[in-house]
Amino acid sequence: MLHAVIPAGGSGTRLWPLSRAGHPKFLLRLAGGESLLQATVSRLASLVPPERMLIVSGRPHVSAIAAQLPDLPADNILAEPSPRDSCAAIGLAAAVIARRDPDAIMGSFAADHLVQDRERFVETIRAAVTGAEQGFLMTVGMTPTRPETGFGYLHCGRRVGDSPILEVLQFKEKPTHEVARKFVDSGEYLWNASMFLWRVEVFLAELERQQPELHAGVVRIAAAWDGPDRADVLADVWPSLPKIAVDYAVMEDAAARGRVATVPADFGWADVGDFRNLGELLAADDKGNVVVPTSPTAPTPVLSETSGSVVAVEDGRLVALLGLQDVIVIDTPDALLVCARDRAQDVKKLVDELKARGATEYL
Amino acid sequence: MLHAVIPAGGSGTRLWPLSRAGHPKFLLRLAGGESLLQATVSRLASLVPPERMLIVSGRPHVSAIAAQLPDLPADNILAEPSPRDSCAAIGLAAAVIARRDPDAIMGSFAADHLVQDRERFVETIRAAVTGAEQGFLMTVGMTPTRPETGFGYLHCGRRVGDSPILEVLQFKEKPTHEVARKFVDSGEYLWNASMFLWRVEVFLAELERQQPELHAGVVRIAAAWDGPDRADVLADVWPSLPKIAVDYAVMEDAAARGRVATVPADFGWADVGDFRNLGELLAADDKGNVVVPTSPTAPTPVLSETSGSVVAVEDGRLVALLGLQDVIVIDTPDALLVCARDRAQDVKKLVDELKARGATEYL
Repeated sequence: MLHAVIPAGGSGTRLWPLSRAGHPKFLLRLAGGESLLQATVSRLASLVPPERMLIVSGRPHVSAIAAQLPDLPADNILAEPSPRDSCAAIGLAAAVIARRDPDAIMGSFAADHLVQDRERFVETIRAAVTGAEQGFLMTVGMTPTRPETGFGYLHCGRRVGDSPILEVLQFKEKPTHEVARKFVDSGEYLWNASMFLWRVEVFLAELERQQPELHAGVVRIAAAWDGPDRADVLADVWPSLPKIAVDYAVMEDAAARGRVATVPADFGWADVGDFRNLGELLAADDKGNVVVPTSPTAPTPVLSETSGSVVAVEDGRLVALLGLQDVIVIDTPDALLVCARDRAQDVKKLVDELKARGATEYL
Repeated sequence: MLHAVIPAGGSGTRLWPLSRAGHPKFLLRLAGGESLLQATVSRLASLVPPERMLIVSGRPHVSAIAAQLPDLPADNILAEPSPRDSCAAIGLAAAVIARRDPDAIMGSFAADHLVQDRERFVETIRAAVTGAEQGFLMTVGMTPTRPETGFGYLHCGRRVGDSPILEVLQFKEKPTHEVARKFVDSGEYLWNASMFLWRVEVFLAELERQQPELHAGVVRIAAAWDGPDRADVLADVWPSLPKIAVDYAVMEDAAARGRVATVPADFGWADVGDFRNLGELLAADDKGNVVVPTSPTAPTPVLSETSGSVVAVEDGRLVALLGLQDVIVIDTPDALLVCARDRAQDVKKLVDELKARGATEYL
């Protein structure tokens, strides 16, 4: 029985002003007509019914998530009282699932990734489930298409039997360009897509071994989850949980002990990090311009003698560009961003500047 | 007795989307806190009281003009039933003034120019009035500061007595760059600032000689102006008046006959033609960025690692620019323009494109 956990965190600062503290990246309708979160749920639909999906997110986002996912039982949104990083979020979900179904296999899927080929995604996850059944902590390893420095890498070892599964020897943090080039050329490395599949009891045993305090905390919360004391125990225990990413907390040492494996995949995966990146993921016109479909009522932007640009119009205004190359124009009801395309990474700095100015109403 | 006539025409297409068909250039608040029209009236205030000012404009703009100029008597806005170019507008004003005050001196001043030094402007106009009293058709000739190809030039002859007044030998249309360079180098040419001063009877006599049909028409309308038949006569005669600019219709031939003179001036004059030009007229910060003050409530734009740019914010939104050089960003409630600064002239083409698309609600 596969259960899906979708940690929905991170505001996506580099996608400001589309993303805001109160309207984070995973809620943005950047996946055709769907939000990134809705698309994540849709592509899992043939693997997991709604009652076996858990969304883990911050309390302020619960009502927006419920509105975007009307088929999800209300109790399947786990509201974190405060952000405690991915190990606490995934650990709590694992502990809650284990109490309901000790033999469960659980998959964790980020809420803000894009996947192009859903059929191949489903095939890949099915293969990963067979690895999880064998007791591995499974990851999904994307075949790298470029020496990307923005992702972590998986150093792969030998094949497991005659399956598509490879052992993972080591987790590698985001490399320099030179190192990334070597990784890609060697053929031994895959991108870590931050998807995990495992038997919950295998994961919880690793968690107990490596992070005993965090394990004890999530087990205590999970024990109270379906009873009257949930809120009290959560308020009591949650703030004390170590704030750590699951990769560092559990996966790295488990890999060193031969307990991690991966399914090589290439279903067209992307972490929508910034507008430049988003522009590369969407269909461009013959001049390389991308119009991000955010509002169905906005008039078509006028792109006159303009190339390589990314335009998003949220509020139905007419947007006209003239004589520009490689700019990003993001038009929202209360804020407008115009940015050189090669500076898309620095939108984060701009947001920091707004924060420093005290212009929090725009964040 | 000096009367001032202010022809307020031209929508200012190259200033779209600030300017619109229903909100033409002269109504835009581009002169500090004032609109170009209000600034035109203000700088004439020490020369002419409101009751001797006439605004000539299209019917659709009368109420907006009246709202911007509450001190102007309502009857001092002459509403043209349709645009018939400057000779009809100025001719009608002259004929109306002549009936009220046959000895009047009249000055005509475009409604959409900027003047930096108002004191010197007033001195210049006083000097021009003395020329008009002597019977000349007076112009104001701006000392050229560059070989501008966007203006007409006045070829000047000898000085009149020991006054600052020079005879004008010839009107020259907008020259090529090469010709403009020769004009400037010769020291014999001034920019034609399209300001005219004359005794109304001198002008009407020239009009009668050169444009008898137009003269007869405006005299007929003026005769009915202060009676009950104004509307009928205007509706009957106006559409038949020749559509011609006063420079070609009257001034060129008058100059050939030695009847035109000019006062050389340099009070910081500018025809606000496009956004590039506007940017050059306003104070820039140390990176060459200009924020056009259009809305007192808009938050200060964030210009991060941005230079040479012109930003106007009409609707109170936060505008943030990042990593850009030489762009124009014009933010209005229903339309946004982002344009390369050196393409400011082509905003007109963009407006034509919108017209061709049928997007008239934005024009």
